[in-house]
Amino acid sequence: MEKKIKAGIIGGAGYTGGETLRLLLNHHVVEISFVHSRSNAGKPVHAVHTDLLGETEMVFTDALAFDVDVLFLCMGHGESKKFLQENIVLSTVKIIDLGNDFRLGDKVAGRTFIYGLPELNRAVILRANNVANPGCFATAIQLGLLPLASKGLLKEVYTTGITGSTGAGQKLQNTTHFTWRANNISAYKTLTHQHVTEINQSLKQLQSTYQGNLHFVPWRGDFTRGIFVSSIVETQKSLEELNQLFKVFYQDHPFTHVADTMIDLKQVVNTNKCLIYLEKEGNKLVVHSAIDNLLKGASGQAIQNMNLMFGLDERAGLQLKSTVF
Amino acid sequence: MEKKIKAGIIGGAGYTGGETLRLLLNHHVVEISFVHSRSNAGKPVHAVHTDLLGETEMVFTDALAFDVDVLFLCMGHGESKKFLQENIVLSTVKIIDLGNDFRLGDKVAGRTFIYGLPELNRAVILRANNVANPGCFATAIQLGLLPLASKGLLKEVYTTGITGSTGAGQKLQNTTHFTWRANNISAYKTLTHQHVTEINQSLKQLQSTYQGNLHFVPWRGDFTRGIFVSSIVETQKSLEELNQLFKVFYQDHPFTHVADTMIDLKQVVNTNKCLIYLEKEGNKLVVHSAIDNLLKGASGQAIQNMNLMFGLDERAGLQLKSTVF
Amino acid sequence: MEKKIKAGIIGGAGYTGGETLRLLLNHHVVEISFVHSRSNAGKPVHAVHTDLLGETEMVFTDALAFDVDVLFLCMGHGESKKFLQENIVLSTVKIIDLGNDFRLGDKVAGRTFIYGLPELNRAVILRANNVANPGCFATAIQLGLLPLASKGLLKEVYTTGITGSTGAGQKLQNTTHFTWRANNISAYKTLTHQHVTEINQSLKQLQSTYQGNLHFVPWRGDFTRGIFVSSIVETQKSLEELNQLFKVFYQDHPFTHVADTMIDLKQVVNTNKCLIYLEKEGNKLVVHSAIDNLLKGASGQAIQNMNLMFGLDERAGLQLKSTVF
Amino acid sequence: MEKKIKAGIIGGAGYTGGETLRLLLNHHVVEISFVHSRSNAGKPVHAVHTDLLGETEMVFTDALAFDVDVLFLCMGHGESKKFLQENIVLSTVKIIDLGNDFRLGDKVAGRTFIYGLPELNRAVILRANNVANPGCFATAIQLGLLPLASKGLLKEVYTTGITGSTGAGQKLQNTTHFTWRANNISAYKTLTHQHVTEINQSLKQLQSTYQGNLHFVPWRGDFTRGIFVSSIVETQKSLEELNQLFKVFYQDHPFTHVADTMIDLKQVVNTNKCLIYLEKEGNKLVVHSAIDNLLKGASGQAIQNMNLMFGLDERAGLQLKSTVF
Repeated sequence: MEKKIKAGIIGGAGYTGGETLRLLLNHHVVEISFVHSRSNAGKPVHAVHTDLLGETEMVFTDALAFDVDVLFLCMGHGESKKFLQENIVLSTVKIIDLGNDFRLGDKVAGRTFIYGLPELNRAVILRANNVANPGCFATAIQLGLLPLASKGLLKEVYTTGITGSTGAGQKLQNTTHFTWRANNISAYKTLTHQHVTEINQSLKQLQSTYQGNLHFVPWRGDFTRGIFVSSIVETQKSLEELNQLFKVFYQDHPFTHVADTMIDLKQVVNTNKCLIYLEKEGNKLVVHSAIDNLLKGASGQAIQNMNLMFGLDERAGLQLKSTVF
Repeated sequence: MEKKIKAGIIGGAGYTGGETLRLLLNHHVVEISFVHSRSNAGKPVHAVHTDLLGETEMVFTDALAFDVDVLFLCMGHGESKKFLQENIVLSTVKIIDLGNDFRLGDKVAGRTFIYGLPELNRAVILRANNVANPGCFATAIQLGLLPLASKGLLKEVYTTGITGSTGAGQKLQNTTHFTWRANNISAYKTLTHQHVTEINQSLKQLQSTYQGNLHFVPWRGDFTRGIFVSSIVETQKSLEELNQLFKVFYQDHPFTHVADTMIDLKQVVNTNKCLIYLEKEGNKLVVHSAIDNLLKGASGQAIQNMNLMFGLDERAGLQLKSTVF
Repeated sequence: MEKKIKAGIIGGAGYTGGETLRLLLNHHVVEISFVHSRSNAGKPVHAVHTDLLGETEMVFTDALAFDVDVLFLCMGHGESKKFLQENIVLSTVKIIDLGNDFRLGDKVAGRTFIYGLPELNRAVILRANNVANPGCFATAIQLGLLPLASKGLLKEVYTTGITGSTGAGQKLQNTTHFTWRANNISAYKTLTHQHVTEINQSLKQLQSTYQGNLHFVPWRGDFTRGIFVSSIVETQKSLEELNQLFKVFYQDHPFTHVADTMIDLKQVVNTNKCLIYLEKEGNKLVVHSAIDNLLKGASGQAIQNMNLMFGLDERAGLQLKSTVF
Repeated sequence: MEKKIKAGIIGGAGYTGGETLRLLLNHHVVEISFVHSRSNAGKPVHAVHTDLLGETEMVFTDALAFDVDVLFLCMGHGESKKFLQENIVLSTVKIIDLGNDFRLGDKVAGRTFIYGLPELNRAVILRANNVANPGCFATAIQLGLLPLASKGLLKEVYTTGITGSTGAGQKLQNTTHFTWRANNISAYKTLTHQHVTEINQSLKQLQSTYQGNLHFVPWRGDFTRGIFVSSIVETQKSLEELNQLFKVFYQDHPFTHVADTMIDLKQVVNTNKCLIYLEKEGNKLVVHSAIDNLLKGASGQAIQNMNLMFGLDERAGLQLKSTVF
């Protein structure tokens, strides 16, 4: 009998905490040591994540016990750093942070974080003790651009992306009110979305000449899960060469695939996959990409990183049945 | 030039206040004197009802000026009575209350309210000074049962109804969070919905032998506007007789129609209409009915009542383009 | 190494065929021998089930090879019987039919079918060679009524249920046109739904005095997956006794659970679970139940039956991550 | 009593025919002479447009009687020209074509068509006998760019737009199947949408130096009505100057408004309005615009053109209650 990896979840009542929990419950090599939530301590987890009724009798705890192999930090942005400053976590405990505190190289308590996009950094993630999990839009946009950056092809990038309501978290707000959001579309953080910085950081890692000219317009969509992105870039390369470039780039990455026909969002909902599709007119290339914002864009990628950090099959616990419809 | 009716709206920032405002803006015989909202005083109404940008430059007021012909009370349940106790409104001002304070015969400040369902009470509404506008589910269910009550046919009634999110008001709550409500169905207030009382009151008005045995299960729907109801009752009458009964009962009511083929919710969304369809198997009759909860179920019916109270064409300002799709 | 079960899917291009395929692809003890589709022979399965891109390179076949341990028949109603009449399938091959041809006891080619509702018939399914998988509405409604029938408590039953668009299959039709169905509600087959017969058959199996008085109004919902049902019955038993009755009845059934708070549809979407919730006012009991129509209502239950027929853990391959949101 | 305008609708059973009919039914100066539909001749219009039950008893006709003042052609693309070639329509009958046959200057039977975008061509529409109504995406995109073109500011334009399912018409197709489209997003006609030509024609009319470099990625949205567009262009002008430019450009156009806060799609659904909002970062300007594709993008704009051609108030029959929610 294989020894199980002991995992703890901090911030287990939120969306990414809940998805991490759902994935770990079915991960054969993992044993969940605790699910932490200050505000829900003592309640069964299925009182909050009501779909888990009949799946688990675990109870939220507010006690912090760090006798685990890996900690998933699923807290609001800014809270992970504070948490690691205020609590002593043994350096033998690996940390995967789903917030945005460490994506740009910040350190805390002697810990250096690797940017956890396996398609970019798998070799170093394999040896990492601390991983900063990428943002959701950042994941979808980067996966559409990394192969181009790897060949020095990026200049100006024009990107529009649309995200589901779960991207906005559990908090009740006007833009997550059903009456407002149903059948509605709107834009937000036009050209100023916080993920642009981490995207540019990754693109520069592959293409030193890239100037960071990514013009990104995010839209709010009237669905709950998923991100669909279309980026326009200029290139003289033929569509055939470009498809070849992308397919080779992702050939040994199990979750990112280049399609030969138009993709749609629901192909990836409730999976850890990213699908990409390329189209070209004149010298304009359009790259479409789609992910589930809570899985490949958050908790699924966190588990993918855990698998790599612990030498497991990258796909362990992530062969998920898509919702499809 | 006809003299215009001067109207005031109390509680103009909520859903029913907003819909009343939208209807009155296009009502040729009405002039809106003021739109009252304590919390939004000083703001343009299009800052709250953003679809009205370009339609009106009116501003919310918190001043109470009762120099009007009619007041629409669009407040939370329980607040209308308090409002009329605390403020002196001349008895010459007609009042239409969209809340539930006066539907069961309560009086305030010398005012007696008529239950404002025109298909039941038009003759008295024509002479009324104060009208209590029916509830949304109450309207949809009653219109499906009134003709049966008029012939003494009701015994046990089993009703299921589904309502859009606007029925729950503007307040942010877990059951109006987009992430929860999208693609979801749930039940609430099973067999205990507050509208059952006013429905039974109306049915007894037409059928004194009716015992009030209405068993109503309300569901929350994953759409914003509309109510669809199916009621099952037992009767020996033939479907042909029943269709005849319903068509005669509603023949001079301009908004309620009996269809000859199955109805669906979107036939009535954004209109003041109620559509009804009858089916029969053995001795079980099923009556389907559909309304827009905010129009025939609230603000539209309030305008219909105003039209009657002021001797106007019952349809004035209510010939609305349905959304259809 | 355990010997794998060889499975074939007939009708693999439809919804239930696709879901059966998705489940079997992740079922550790099963090897898919072939996916049959006459109209798609030669195409990769991911050309039809586009979410499977990157999951499998299988190709549809129109060759019929019955060298398998189990056949899943995922065809239109009426076609399974014809298929088994026209093709010689060795009697050693177990058959699970997802259509409605054999639910009422029909035989074909020497094969007798067991009605495959594990919560009712698990003991005989364990020894069965042929299973007729229940209908989707039939599953949701029965699971809400079986414990009552087991105590002889059923007389008149009033049921309303709502189903997603996948219940209507892949065919393009007016009632599955997005423009019509989005945000819409309608009724169909009022009091005449074909599932009532199989429901009554099961209820009589447990309660010989039950007269078959189930009055069922099905609604079309504006979502893709899931069924939510509310049934009203009369009983003198206390809510406490009834909850106890239901919990004991389902205590060793891993997919059916009685909740202590109101349930909603999305708790079960993309899972094989059925959730039940009871409420009572006076002598009227309301039983709410929810399933995913394509899983517990079709392909998931088919796998559950396969697990039982082959002596596997009933839950094998069915511990699915719900979509939740 | 004012003499009414007699109107005929050719192709009255489709979406744009139905919307034109709905608008004309409530237009006080218009009398509908006939609604033509070959395939539905003899049926009541409410048999097809079921929301019109109780609104009109008109019946579809297949007889062509051109004793009218204005004909609305609501047919498939390519059919209008054929219709006017095959049928003799007196030159005194004004024609408004909702298809794309005459938008680029084609003539037929001695008729020259004016491109019917009032914000661009109102002066000539006022004197026109034949109007080619603009495309839906074309309307939304142009209204976001015309003021810039009027100052010679356009070079490269990057546009993403999303449209509701009604844009794809009534025909049943895979991309309008509810099961596919619900909660889904996809792209189509990337960089090759047919509306780009008419957009470029209009922009060149105002800015002769514009080279036609509009890069447009259209998306399919999971809603029925509406178009939301974001266009990125480069300019040195300040946001203040740009807002001023747009507000002056549209100041005497009653349906197009520049907002001071972010817009969303539902502000305009079921109205004839276009809302615009500008944002700027560095030298990149983003113009957001929103319309209802069936109204300002089709039938509403057709009525607006009719009003202008007949010297009526431009807003007649178009002061519509938005759906809002």
